[in-house]
Amino acid sequence: MAGNTWGRLLKVTTAGVSHGPGYLCIVDGCPAGLDLSIDDLLPDLRRRRPGQSKLTTQRQEDDAPEIISGVYQGKTDGTPIGLVFRNADQRSQDYGNLVDAYRPGHADFTFDAKYGRRDPRGGGRSSARETICRVAAGAIARKLLARIGIRVVGYVTQVGNIIAKIPDPTKVTIEQVEAHPTRCPDPVAADAMAQLIDSVRRDLDSIGGAAEIVATGVPPGWGEPVFDKLKADLGKALLSLPAVVGFEYGAGFAAANWRGSQNNDLFVPRSERPWGLGTTTNNHGGMLGGISSGEPIVMRVAVKPTSSLARPQKTVNSAREPVDLSTKGRHDPCLLPRFIPMGEAMVMLTLADHWLRHRAVAGLLANDQP
Amino acid sequence: MAGNTWGRLLKVTTAGVSHGPGYLCIVDGCPAGLDLSIDDLLPDLRRRRPGQSKLTTQRQEDDAPEIISGVYQGKTDGTPIGLVFRNADQRSQDYGNLVDAYRPGHADFTFDAKYGRRDPRGGGRSSARETICRVAAGAIARKLLARIGIRVVGYVTQVGNIIAKIPDPTKVTIEQVEAHPTRCPDPVAADAMAQLIDSVRRDLDSIGGAAEIVATGVPPGWGEPVFDKLKADLGKALLSLPAVVGFEYGAGFAAANWRGSQNNDLFVPRSERPWGLGTTTNNHGGMLGGISSGEPIVMRVAVKPTSSLARPQKTVNSAREPVDLSTKGRHDPCLLPRFIPMGEAMVMLTLADHWLRHRAVAGLLANDQP
Amino acid sequence: MAGNTWGRLLKVTTAGVSHGPGYLCIVDGCPAGLDLSIDDLLPDLRRRRPGQSKLTTQRQEDDAPEIISGVYQGKTDGTPIGLVFRNADQRSQDYGNLVDAYRPGHADFTFDAKYGRRDPRGGGRSSARETICRVAAGAIARKLLARIGIRVVGYVTQVGNIIAKIPDPTKVTIEQVEAHPTRCPDPVAADAMAQLIDSVRRDLDSIGGAAEIVATGVPPGWGEPVFDKLKADLGKALLSLPAVVGFEYGAGFAAANWRGSQNNDLFVPRSERPWGLGTTTNNHGGMLGGISSGEPIVMRVAVKPTSSLARPQKTVNSAREPVDLSTKGRHDPCLLPRFIPMGEAMVMLTLADHWLRHRAVAGLLANDQP
Amino acid sequence: MAGNTWGRLLKVTTAGVSHGPGYLCIVDGCPAGLDLSIDDLLPDLRRRRPGQSKLTTQRQEDDAPEIISGVYQGKTDGTPIGLVFRNADQRSQDYGNLVDAYRPGHADFTFDAKYGRRDPRGGGRSSARETICRVAAGAIARKLLARIGIRVVGYVTQVGNIIAKIPDPTKVTIEQVEAHPTRCPDPVAADAMAQLIDSVRRDLDSIGGAAEIVATGVPPGWGEPVFDKLKADLGKALLSLPAVVGFEYGAGFAAANWRGSQNNDLFVPRSERPWGLGTTTNNHGGMLGGISSGEPIVMRVAVKPTSSLARPQKTVNSAREPVDLSTKGRHDPCLLPRFIPMGEAMVMLTLADHWLRHRAVAGLLANDQP
Repeated sequence: MAGNTWGRLLKVTTAGVSHGPGYLCIVDGCPAGLDLSIDDLLPDLRRRRPGQSKLTTQRQEDDAPEIISGVYQGKTDGTPIGLVFRNADQRSQDYGNLVDAYRPGHADFTFDAKYGRRDPRGGGRSSARETICRVAAGAIARKLLARIGIRVVGYVTQVGNIIAKIPDPTKVTIEQVEAHPTRCPDPVAADAMAQLIDSVRRDLDSIGGAAEIVATGVPPGWGEPVFDKLKADLGKALLSLPAVVGFEYGAGFAAANWRGSQNNDLFVPRSERPWGLGTTTNNHGGMLGGISSGEPIVMRVAVKPTSSLARPQKTVNSAREPVDLSTKGRHDPCLLPRFIPMGEAMVMLTLADHWLRHRAVAGLLANDQP
Repeated sequence: MAGNTWGRLLKVTTAGVSHGPGYLCIVDGCPAGLDLSIDDLLPDLRRRRPGQSKLTTQRQEDDAPEIISGVYQGKTDGTPIGLVFRNADQRSQDYGNLVDAYRPGHADFTFDAKYGRRDPRGGGRSSARETICRVAAGAIARKLLARIGIRVVGYVTQVGNIIAKIPDPTKVTIEQVEAHPTRCPDPVAADAMAQLIDSVRRDLDSIGGAAEIVATGVPPGWGEPVFDKLKADLGKALLSLPAVVGFEYGAGFAAANWRGSQNNDLFVPRSERPWGLGTTTNNHGGMLGGISSGEPIVMRVAVKPTSSLARPQKTVNSAREPVDLSTKGRHDPCLLPRFIPMGEAMVMLTLADHWLRHRAVAGLLANDQP
Repeated sequence: MAGNTWGRLLKVTTAGVSHGPGYLCIVDGCPAGLDLSIDDLLPDLRRRRPGQSKLTTQRQEDDAPEIISGVYQGKTDGTPIGLVFRNADQRSQDYGNLVDAYRPGHADFTFDAKYGRRDPRGGGRSSARETICRVAAGAIARKLLARIGIRVVGYVTQVGNIIAKIPDPTKVTIEQVEAHPTRCPDPVAADAMAQLIDSVRRDLDSIGGAAEIVATGVPPGWGEPVFDKLKADLGKALLSLPAVVGFEYGAGFAAANWRGSQNNDLFVPRSERPWGLGTTTNNHGGMLGGISSGEPIVMRVAVKPTSSLARPQKTVNSAREPVDLSTKGRHDPCLLPRFIPMGEAMVMLTLADHWLRHRAVAGLLANDQP
Repeated sequence: MAGNTWGRLLKVTTAGVSHGPGYLCIVDGCPAGLDLSIDDLLPDLRRRRPGQSKLTTQRQEDDAPEIISGVYQGKTDGTPIGLVFRNADQRSQDYGNLVDAYRPGHADFTFDAKYGRRDPRGGGRSSARETICRVAAGAIARKLLARIGIRVVGYVTQVGNIIAKIPDPTKVTIEQVEAHPTRCPDPVAADAMAQLIDSVRRDLDSIGGAAEIVATGVPPGWGEPVFDKLKADLGKALLSLPAVVGFEYGAGFAAANWRGSQNNDLFVPRSERPWGLGTTTNNHGGMLGGISSGEPIVMRVAVKPTSSLARPQKTVNSAREPVDLSTKGRHDPCLLPRFIPMGEAMVMLTLADHWLRHRAVAGLLANDQP
């Protein structure tokens, strides 16, 4: 109940802090028979890793986990997959002077308020390094989903006031995304974003942005109609990531301005699809009534600027005394490039979980149906 | 697993469709000893009810439930609270010609894809009348939260291109909200919204909008740090409502444009509060690291325009044949005014649930703490 | 979390007390397409009903529920099935003098200790009438399980010192069970049991007993290996029923006396079965490592004598003062005959839930498997 | 959903197999502020360890885990406690010839039936070594429960036909239990049990038995009245352990023979207790209506004889061909001595979980109560 588990049927449970010995991740409910090795996890983990370019933090982390269980002779065996990540390059001295100060925008104060104590090193449990577990688990979900042709791709659409032009979200490939350190597939915008991030970094400041995540190949019928709508679970999935402060899908907030006659997507026959229909537009972002429609699922999130700043900030300490804070840790001036694999991971875990939920009942009584 | 239950400790389970005999709602986990009668539920139910003004649908629904259990001699007794709502004024003939057509923007097709069958009358399980259960359960949560001074107020901030001016979201009262049928507390904008809605209605069209929901009085320390962050559960809560297509809190999507030095809220001593501090601004919307900070929780949602239109639309039927659709049902030209009690309800249920989750461990070992 | 929900994928949530307006039952997760009407629920409900013979309480209850939702045109539609049972023949005056006394063997004191208040009429939430919801939900599970040839039959094996002879538990039919008001399929023992129950009733006393429940047709592979072993969930299912004080399966407590060479069931080829093998004996009661083996699942429970006695008993009241208690309600002198449908229901709900859990992953990657 | 998690608020998730790299255990939901170090876990782990005496298997296992997270500066910090156990002394060659044979009484066949594949080494996921995680987690629960004076003690009451005399179950101490390698606190019976186990071992056979577990100090009011009755959760807890084939509490199966006038425990004032009453006898085993009564909770389980035998057995292999099986692994001739810490662990985890569930609502509205 302390909230360290994600999913109902494909369940991910994590433990660990950034400056302790490491992280544990248990993925329970993965079907047996999936080819799986450490090499399946590394590509996404490398995309998440700090120090990839000058746009991201220069911390070096060893992100390769040990697979403790759940894989036998190269295939998953249906038992829980256990992963251990060891922490290295801890440099906890960088955080020595922060132990008692409540960093603006961070969870230092709220952890103290909740638990009466906290591990102050590197943000403790609220460190973004926790997402290493999510990304590894997400890579397993990626393999599962690929079995039925589902592909999940995320990319940066905005950094500060620079907004990318994406002619067709469903056509963006991971290769296009990885081609630029910003993970923005619009080359012109990407270069401008890189300049802005570098400029902000030199200002000892940080900058926010937005990202889009697209899932293609999801068949119609996934999601539950009332409280566990697919849009609600995907929203929670992405909002559970550090620094995400907004979520929308399809037309999203733009729909607040629209009329129904503009916003409604009209159904038309599509005989080339197994389910025989589609919509001419996709303002509904692939979900109707909380259930997938067969159209691509298109989501957007807002990510706030990094709270850790290299410049001094005023705050209070745990004695409620005003103090001047100067952070020496190495932080990303913009979270967006490294956010992409994290966001994809949460989307993939959520889709795989709903796939299993759907399978539990789908077609059970099919022979009775008209 | 079919997703008809909300909450972990304060659990709401619902059943029912709009054109069947009625709805059932079971609220499990409410503490014993709360004064509760039908009169506590009616005010919020009346705010949700159709037919309140010409801005909303003219359907008349009988929204008073029968309390079947969980209340003894005027107080909750700790056992599950059972509510039964009877449907009236069904006029299912209004929907007769829709049985086979997939209405644009609705869940007709996705239900068929999921279940292989569906109750077509009035949207079946995906009818917004389902929220009657949520609003009644939310009214119970409202009473619980009021015990410790928590107040949840929602209001309309946008209809189409008309945007309200709200000088201080934390000062808006339910009385101000209820003073205008739009539920917008900015009287000038409210009148313009009413005109726009009426104009749209006469165009046989509908219009989208946005709403803000504010929770004041939430103490610091609620929410769980990783997957069940308070922001994530509140986001899921609101996204689980029909027609909600976007969620943000605090600065939200605006933070994508900002620098960290603008976005960070600085801590200062606040000796008048039990926890002794606060922030000078509230771009973090009352949540840091997924845990409440003691500042007001401020959220915004986008609501799409009503999908049911009185004007003809093109679509396909279940045989995948093109058909012309003409909806005769009575629908809200704008969902926003009636959305407010629904949104408040989901926020209150989520906060009350996290309160209980927090209570389970809070202070258990307090005497050991420094 | 207040524990009024059973199951993970096929979920049953109940509310209600015996002397309030009635009971609600929501069955969530039933697959769409199952033929279902009130007539499917009545046979098991009638078996549970009081007043069937002089061996049971003479209270008359109206046990036919109203189906509020989840069934459309005679078939389940995948949405939650809502049931409402109305209470009748309440005679709460029978309990008037018990309001303040803690009845021995009952939950009066423990409810007060838990909630600080309670509905004293007829046992309130701890009344065995609560099982009416379980039996109705179990009847739905019975229909589901029958689709793949699973049959669940329970019968009385012991009342006091009278023990039935059951040559082959897997051969007992519901017709044999229903042929005698004791629900003991050994006619000689059944008559002796009936005499004993009648004698005990005339003594203003009650008597305990035991029952066996057998599930045939369960394929191998259901159940989860560690915490949610099928034996563990079936044990919990039966122990969650009022008055059940012991559970065993297969050899059960007798195995405490045995050697491994006696207790081990040897595998042999069984080409007539789809899975090609079986065991020569069934000391393992159809479950190995917590997973079904394909052999019949055979369980036994001990049921304590009815706590309500027509004879006076000494106890204390809520002021902790000694009082003499004389119960005027009409109670079963032996719970066993009416226990049978309750026990079958919990077994069927548990099996159906594990079926769905198994379906979620089973065969997903089958094409990869050797 | 794959069942590798125990608990609702105090959650234990495990992964690992006996002949892989090791085991992971994540304990989520432990309150912050509990003094905790590896030394708190070792005593119970040592009691579980193989090779303690000639009565148990001679395998040597390294049972000290590494604490990866959840403890900061010697106290729990509210975040999940991560434990890693490394396997040693694997000798998987001992199992080489078993890879393809379905061992009688084991889960080899049922795992194959469930997953289509399995890790055959040492029983894979169904190895009793999995309980190492439960015992470590249980040791944490033991510390929590000790804070309010709850003590959980288990002991062996039966091995084969030898039955211990325990004058007062509530008076047995862990010291008495640990004084004999059988963990039977009746010295005469203990010696006879030891002789029987040794004799069975020399026969290349194994023997079953029974154990009793007693929890003293549990206050009245824990447990949920309907499906999550304390008796039901404790029953599931113990039945989830390998080889447990029966569970009873209080009078248990003996109550099947009894009359209500014998079985009912009468309430009397007990002014020395905070809740002011008690019962003169404890046939109800400390639970009424599924809720703790304040009397000691007394449970008994039956444990089958070890399925692995040193003598040859006939069985079939995965090709469904008859084969002769000869097991070379080192196994306990009787599981009972090492069962005790496992059984205690599951009871303690269940009680601690219900404590937190109770705390979530207890006293929330106390000031209103009469």
